[in-house]
Amino acid sequence: MGTNDACVFCEIVAGRAAASVPFEDALVVCLMDIHPVNPGHLLVIPKRHATGLDELDDGTGAHMFRVALRMQRALRASGLPCDGVNLLLADGESAGQDVPHVHLHVVPRHTGDRLRITAELTKPSRAELDQAAAAIGAAC
Amino acid sequence: MGTNDACVFCEIVAGRAAASVPFEDALVVCLMDIHPVNPGHLLVIPKRHATGLDELDDGTGAHMFRVALRMQRALRASGLPCDGVNLLLADGESAGQDVPHVHLHVVPRHTGDRLRITAELTKPSRAELDQAAAAIGAAC
Repeated sequence: MGTNDACVFCEIVAGRAAASVPFEDALVVCLMDIHPVNPGHLLVIPKRHATGLDELDDGTGAHMFRVALRMQRALRASGLPCDGVNLLLADGESAGQDVPHVHLHVVPRHTGDRLRITAELTKPSRAELDQAAAAIGAAC
Repeated sequence: MGTNDACVFCEIVAGRAAASVPFEDALVVCLMDIHPVNPGHLLVIPKRHATGLDELDDGTGAHMFRVALRMQRALRASGLPCDGVNLLLADGESAGQDVPHVHLHVVPRHTGDRLRITAELTKPSRAELDQAAAAIGAAC
């Protein structure tokens, strides 16, 4: 299995670093974030090292999301405070990726908690939106 | 196909409301967010109406993520500014869900842009993390 000795998540997958693991299977491990936004905040990571999405195969990526859906159901049934959920993946430094091993956050939310996602939204014209869609569609 | 006449995303899927669409297939439509954080910000939505994750089947959910991975590759190849990517899904009002039809944001990022994700992180003990993991694991 592809591992990276310098990677803390690979150390966890290999059993050489501590983690609190609610679930794992052949492809992924779920572990509790050690700096959670709220109790129950967990990460879904691939067992095979991938620094970013460009190194992740689509099958494993789709499986990560399937497991994240299962985890959010478990969170809602766990008794931990959870009346909403964010799934968040940051790929690349400018996106806020902190650990260079792909990880999908599953964050239980409740009214009044401390997570804030803010942006100055823009309002492009339909022609500008169509132009962006065409550029992306052409690169698919 | 399950639709909801009051739902703006169902109106788009049905062809009764305008959208800029870079990609679609049998299960999902991608559309440019009309209030993008950055040019190229798009949404992956299921064609069949699901208000929240509890109404979404896991196969469609996994497919949404697979398509999101394809879209982020296309974004990076499109020529639009993109040196990082966030994938974000908000389920429930407390998580910031604005449109009551499941949608996965694919957000191109670049250094100095206007998206901010902030939280006051906590630092629970290993025993507290183990307890959360056990509660979630038992509910899987």
